[in-house]
Amino acid sequence: MTSPNETATPAATDVVTAAVLVIGDEILSGRTKDKNIGYIADHMTAIGIQLKEVRIVADDEDDIVDAINALRTRWDYVFTTGGIGPTHDDITADCVAKAFGVGIGIHPEAEALLLENWKKRNVEATPARMRMARIPDGGKLIHNAVSVAPGFMIGNVITMAGIPNVMQVMLDDATQYLRTGRKMHSEAIDLDQPEGVVAGVLGEHQKLYPDVPMGSYPTIRDNKPCTQLVLRSTDPEKLAEATSGLREKLRASGML
Amino acid sequence: MTSPNETATPAATDVVTAAVLVIGDEILSGRTKDKNIGYIADHMTAIGIQLKEVRIVADDEDDIVDAINALRTRWDYVFTTGGIGPTHDDITADCVAKAFGVGIGIHPEAEALLLENWKKRNVEATPARMRMARIPDGGKLIHNAVSVAPGFMIGNVITMAGIPNVMQVMLDDATQYLRTGRKMHSEAIDLDQPEGVVAGVLGEHQKLYPDVPMGSYPTIRDNKPCTQLVLRSTDPEKLAEATSGLREKLRASGML
Repeated sequence: MTSPNETATPAATDVVTAAVLVIGDEILSGRTKDKNIGYIADHMTAIGIQLKEVRIVADDEDDIVDAINALRTRWDYVFTTGGIGPTHDDITADCVAKAFGVGIGIHPEAEALLLENWKKRNVEATPARMRMARIPDGGKLIHNAVSVAPGFMIGNVITMAGIPNVMQVMLDDATQYLRTGRKMHSEAIDLDQPEGVVAGVLGEHQKLYPDVPMGSYPTIRDNKPCTQLVLRSTDPEKLAEATSGLREKLRASGML
Repeated sequence: MTSPNETATPAATDVVTAAVLVIGDEILSGRTKDKNIGYIADHMTAIGIQLKEVRIVADDEDDIVDAINALRTRWDYVFTTGGIGPTHDDITADCVAKAFGVGIGIHPEAEALLLENWKKRNVEATPARMRMARIPDGGKLIHNAVSVAPGFMIGNVITMAGIPNVMQVMLDDATQYLRTGRKMHSEAIDLDQPEGVVAGVLGEHQKLYPDVPMGSYPTIRDNKPCTQLVLRSTDPEKLAEATSGLREKLRASGML
């Protein structure tokens, strides 16, 4: 096992990848609808990290540990959401420690932050509340400007709260520690045509630019089947060339 | 490998499990926000199937095949969404065939349905469009009352479209083929208290009812931290007993 906080040397042209692990029975039962995946996806795209996989698992130790280990060994970063509160079903920190094979205990800075906040608010430091200061050994704190109780980063795993506005400030704080790669740029072409009409031209054009992935997304507008084509590349010049070439072909065949 | 359409004998008391596999670069890039996971989660809970895992993967053959095989060998059913349209990036049907080690070809019933629909609408049967009639060998059709092009079920894998209203009618059609288990019932208790206050009582009560999972979900109401407790069980009597016992303890300690 590598040391938890070992990091690779950044290279500007690198592709940097990430995965999200959402932890929580309440998402799987449908009672709570996830609002974090789309937000993290947008943030990753904006900062130049490619989100490659998402998993949602139950509040089950083995499932969480297995998912953390599968994702952290495959992708550059793993962002977890959920399961870091004060109640018995909040087991994410313990699972991260177990996945890394390290201990877990009260983190002095987390403890100080929480005690100061509780003192101000006249809140008792119960054993349950003190659980929120437990951080896997070697982890550094991810600050929480909304409700103080911190997240943490250990190795390439960033553990955040599940409440969306808390997750969002933690993601902002964590971003300073992330190596980012070349940004993925995209161009969209909206067509008043169903997918089936454009598929031939698009497929042929994709073959000319194998490293500019072209997606086709059917939508319904004014009760008519329409299509949005999306071209993506980390190379803005190649993206522009592929997009204008495709526009030309679509115009020539009367689709645009 | 077992035969694709082999099914286990239903037993009324069984727990039946499922996973969802969302396929699509557009979800991972943030461009499209998933609307299917929460819908399927609600549907599963309503019909007595426990959703245990969700994955979102890119439009990448190896990633899709690996995810299908990981999920179908672990859970009773796998529902895939996305990637079954007419364009070159729609590779889900081929990936399902590869995962099961079977061939794929034009399904006569799918072909007839599509040709009839295209004839009525004066739409040409292009090779791209005919891709939508390709079904893994041994798969049965899942009907699509919205836009005709079908999904399919092979073994324990149900492949559906990604467009939410199309996915929804496919899920309805697929439901007739599903073995369902005992329904998971739940009871919620809303508290005007932060999680930290209730954690002790809740944790102790959970120990008395280890088979009634009790979740604690922090929320903000009127700018005050509040908590929703959720108890879940397939046994309505045990659930009622555990819930009323917890309500009593919360009232006794002034939290309810």
